[in-house]
Amino acid sequence: MLVDRTDVPLGMSLRQAGRKAIVMNVSDFAAKGATPLAAMVSLGLPRNVRKTDVKQIGLGINQGAREHGIYVVGGDTNLTDNLVVSCFLFGTADPNLLVRRAGARVGDRVYVSGSFGHQAAGLMVLLGRGRAIGNRRTRLIRAVLWPRARLKLGIELARKRVATSCIDSSDGLAWSLYEIAHASKVGITITRMPTSPLAIRFARTNKTIVEDLVLYGGEEYELVFTSRPKKLRRLSRALRRNVIEIGRVTNEHGKVRFENGAVISPRGWDHFLG
Amino acid sequence: MLVDRTDVPLGMSLRQAGRKAIVMNVSDFAAKGATPLAAMVSLGLPRNVRKTDVKQIGLGINQGAREHGIYVVGGDTNLTDNLVVSCFLFGTADPNLLVRRAGARVGDRVYVSGSFGHQAAGLMVLLGRGRAIGNRRTRLIRAVLWPRARLKLGIELARKRVATSCIDSSDGLAWSLYEIAHASKVGITITRMPTSPLAIRFARTNKTIVEDLVLYGGEEYELVFTSRPKKLRRLSRALRRNVIEIGRVTNEHGKVRFENGAVISPRGWDHFLG
Repeated sequence: MLVDRTDVPLGMSLRQAGRKAIVMNVSDFAAKGATPLAAMVSLGLPRNVRKTDVKQIGLGINQGAREHGIYVVGGDTNLTDNLVVSCFLFGTADPNLLVRRAGARVGDRVYVSGSFGHQAAGLMVLLGRGRAIGNRRTRLIRAVLWPRARLKLGIELARKRVATSCIDSSDGLAWSLYEIAHASKVGITITRMPTSPLAIRFARTNKTIVEDLVLYGGEEYELVFTSRPKKLRRLSRALRRNVIEIGRVTNEHGKVRFENGAVISPRGWDHFLG
Repeated sequence: MLVDRTDVPLGMSLRQAGRKAIVMNVSDFAAKGATPLAAMVSLGLPRNVRKTDVKQIGLGINQGAREHGIYVVGGDTNLTDNLVVSCFLFGTADPNLLVRRAGARVGDRVYVSGSFGHQAAGLMVLLGRGRAIGNRRTRLIRAVLWPRARLKLGIELARKRVATSCIDSSDGLAWSLYEIAHASKVGITITRMPTSPLAIRFARTNKTIVEDLVLYGGEEYELVFTSRPKKLRRLSRALRRNVIEIGRVTNEHGKVRFENGAVISPRGWDHFLG
């Protein structure tokens, strides 16, 4: 469910919002290694919405669907105070290959599908809480307005039995690590932060703590997964290229920390706190 | 998609609202003759919602699901200004038996699955726009707060190849007749109004036009379908008992009227007008 007030920052077009509603759902499929086939989308529309607005939302939904080979097969419309795009995906998965949150084993390594921090920085720029200029500004904002789901990677992680557990990072990296730790009854020690260079630069300019952007941003749809280093080689080179090793699975049940012992807060992007 | 401001009248409890969200969807399955199996439900919750409120909504959703043999298998939560219960049903149907809106043939009769008018009257009572007392008040209000979907009838209409076309009346009887007429490229002449005795009594007391309650109310989840009189005998006696013949299918393409020639307005319950 995409809702304007929490999921559509100022500066995001209705077309981008429609597309994001699909991407959010595709990202959940990616985490499980499931292949989406069809979507049903219900729109809640404010009274003042114009025909051209609805068309833009529809174009965005369709764009997101086509990017991932999905057909939009039905839905509903209703009158709401917010703009609401409620999206349900149908798809297929081999139940023996489905990747859960509860499969991480002590000794596994922890990986992410890309770098973190620039998405949260982009959100701050859009909200006027941070500054960036020129090409950097464009790239930061684009990360928020055109999020990408890691569907190909997710499907390969499942099909080739690479991942022992997986989740998407839409509630923030820290939160995702805790989800895996709790579900798998393990601990996680972070050895390397997947900080994007753009985020480092942004944090320096805006006197923001870059670790907060990386750990608690939650505007990214990366995959966070556990595996053995050897198994990672089963991935195609193209997919492996963006994967970053960030830590290891430990027997410290429920504990997510850095190597120096500093504990990572179990907080994340929460719609009811944010 | 159930939204408090349009679908939850004053006096409807959150439990009833949760149940209604399921019933609305089951009614669409009933019209097609499809059997629902599983539901996914996303909640949009206002900031001031309490834990006990969410529990009541959940109990209602579960109640509606269990009444129809449905499992709730997933969903999402989000922060919204309205209460939103966005519900998607999955189920099965034999594509050869699926009942469409576009199957009515000239000479068919038009039927409804029960009487009309008391549901709209009940809504008026809840909204303080009409009065009723005692047992009558209770029955009027109950029709709104505990709507029933005609799933058994709908499935039998399809399985026994009784209905040539079918729709549920959730947007009002007049609107449903027009939907069938347009989709089937036929006309419909109404020979008998399925007015409930309760509605007649309410209209008299409240100086309301009973035909308006019956034709444009739209708070009921009855089935409106076309068939041949002979085929109707295939229905079990229990199901046939509530079916009312209200008219016949004509070759006056797109025209829905009474026998005396008076045209029925192509209007209904529309969230954007109502």
